[in-house]
Amino acid sequence: MVLEKVLIVDPIDGEYTGDVEIKEGNIAKIKKKHCVPKSVLMPGFVDTHTHGYMGIDCLKATSSEFENWAEYVKKEGVTYLFPTTVSSSKIILQNVIENFLKANHPSLMQLHLEGPFINNEKAGAQNKEYITSFSLEKLPNLKGKVKIITAAPEIYNFEELATFAKAENIKISLGHSNGTYEHFRKAYEMGIDRITHFPNALRNFHHREIGPIGAVFLHNFYVELIVDNVHLSTNFVKMMYRVLGPERLILVTDSISPTGLKDGRYELGDLEITVRDGIAKTNEGVLAGSTLRFIDAVKNFKKITNCSLKELSMVSSYNALKNLGIKGGRIKEGFPAKFVLLDKDLNVIKTMV
Amino acid sequence: MVLEKVLIVDPIDGEYTGDVEIKEGNIAKIKKKHCVPKSVLMPGFVDTHTHGYMGIDCLKATSSEFENWAEYVKKEGVTYLFPTTVSSSKIILQNVIENFLKANHPSLMQLHLEGPFINNEKAGAQNKEYITSFSLEKLPNLKGKVKIITAAPEIYNFEELATFAKAENIKISLGHSNGTYEHFRKAYEMGIDRITHFPNALRNFHHREIGPIGAVFLHNFYVELIVDNVHLSTNFVKMMYRVLGPERLILVTDSISPTGLKDGRYELGDLEITVRDGIAKTNEGVLAGSTLRFIDAVKNFKKITNCSLKELSMVSSYNALKNLGIKGGRIKEGFPAKFVLLDKDLNVIKTMV
Repeated sequence: MVLEKVLIVDPIDGEYTGDVEIKEGNIAKIKKKHCVPKSVLMPGFVDTHTHGYMGIDCLKATSSEFENWAEYVKKEGVTYLFPTTVSSSKIILQNVIENFLKANHPSLMQLHLEGPFINNEKAGAQNKEYITSFSLEKLPNLKGKVKIITAAPEIYNFEELATFAKAENIKISLGHSNGTYEHFRKAYEMGIDRITHFPNALRNFHHREIGPIGAVFLHNFYVELIVDNVHLSTNFVKMMYRVLGPERLILVTDSISPTGLKDGRYELGDLEITVRDGIAKTNEGVLAGSTLRFIDAVKNFKKITNCSLKELSMVSSYNALKNLGIKGGRIKEGFPAKFVLLDKDLNVIKTMV
Repeated sequence: MVLEKVLIVDPIDGEYTGDVEIKEGNIAKIKKKHCVPKSVLMPGFVDTHTHGYMGIDCLKATSSEFENWAEYVKKEGVTYLFPTTVSSSKIILQNVIENFLKANHPSLMQLHLEGPFINNEKAGAQNKEYITSFSLEKLPNLKGKVKIITAAPEIYNFEELATFAKAENIKISLGHSNGTYEHFRKAYEMGIDRITHFPNALRNFHHREIGPIGAVFLHNFYVELIVDNVHLSTNFVKMMYRVLGPERLILVTDSISPTGLKDGRYELGDLEITVRDGIAKTNEGVLAGSTLRFIDAVKNFKKITNCSLKELSMVSSYNALKNLGIKGGRIKEGFPAKFVLLDKDLNVIKTMV
């Protein structure tokens, strides 16, 4: 297959026009040429934090539902999907892993466990009943199917968790934490360089305790951002882009099962939530994930920051994979042909996984 | 007079060794030469925010006390002094201006009025009795003796104040404010580019209302910093230096009359304060200025950030003058011979004004 006259967008090589030849699932050949491009070819999007979609909830999904989920988000350009659990019991988490193990779709990567090793004080919409300090026996058998664990650096036995994760090639992402700057700095020095839905469910900034926000300005953390114009103000997103540049920002949806459905009452894990005007909240009025589609996160980020398409390919694909040590997120010969073809207004024309 | 074999530190030309010839109060000639310098020659320090020193209180100072004050701080390298009032009555402020008018010392520049046009909610150690919205008749006759007015952008009639200040060549410095990001952005677009003791007595940062802290990251404000390791954590100072660089930082002391004296009970304006271990607080426990000496602010900043001497000359002298539109803060031929000679540990050997 040859994609002719496209604007090729690569996070390293930048933007140029040409033809792209695909063979056996890989980008076989790129022919640069001057032309008026018919469409925009970007690396397929990566969603490393998503709890559900179109009625499917990660905690309850059957293996075919995982596959349907991957098909749904493919329409929005997502080619690397990391379904994400919330804090739950060991039995339920084990069940998620078993079902995920049987699912088969080229977009399905590995799971992201958000909790239960987080801080009660920053539970957000996580069920406090399951939140706990770390010990190895509290973990289900991961069977190589978990890539990310969101944990708070101040919990009891955090170092043991970090050691375990490193040995298993699992990325710890700091989150749902009331930890101070010192907690985050120490974690960074242990090699942990990722923060979950920054700076939601984290200690606030103060000039005498700069906290995780200060840590992000002082150290090279990668940060997830929920750019739905609800979790973060547009000014905050603008500020992050101006101060940090695009290299360490990772767009995520944090979407939950009502995403793509109507407003109403739903469940997130076993908590009741209400979606009104697309905003999901618990009965206590706490934001409970989002109903954001990945392509809208991409459009929002572009609109807010006026970034280049090259930079957009970084925050929507390349950075997340680079941070996880996964080869991809490039439009370049020899790389997997996971891409999204868009029109000039960033509407998805076609996605290939 | 010739200063021989000194390490010349200039905020623009950088650091180099040589001899400096002074004639008629100006730097007449600089002879670059390779040598082992005996001392460090920096532009004289600028303190744009200081309420008192060695028992002298700006609100009550006689003209000879203003002169003594200038002599005292000369020992710490300060060659440009802007005595600073706190919120008070029109009569008292008028009195300060009259006394200052009669004082005569080459370090005495103009006054800084901190308040009374600020926000009650962020009064800090200012007397709320005097805090008020702006109107022209509330101002004393400034007689060309006021250079800076600290005001909150959200107060009633702020635009009128800004217009008046512009016409009078007075710099508005935003401070003691509960204003939002929008208030600060609008002020910035009106040409106001300075913030008083950032971010003390300002609205805190939040990711859905980024406030003045966000404004500083998104726009090119100059900011006063009290680097006494009390008002701001060392991590905060480190963060400011890393994110903003040295170009927009202005060291100030915010020192009060007990500075240089023992711990005990004192007055700031007409508020009672207690100094314990050098930390000044009101009876309500609010920080009430500092007992910081300028040379210690300089040493603290160097130690915290490990900045170059060139950068140190920016934050201690050049930036403040540049922001106020005053020629100076340079070690360069043709500039006024206002400088401080230091040993390698930044102890003052000699100051010239």
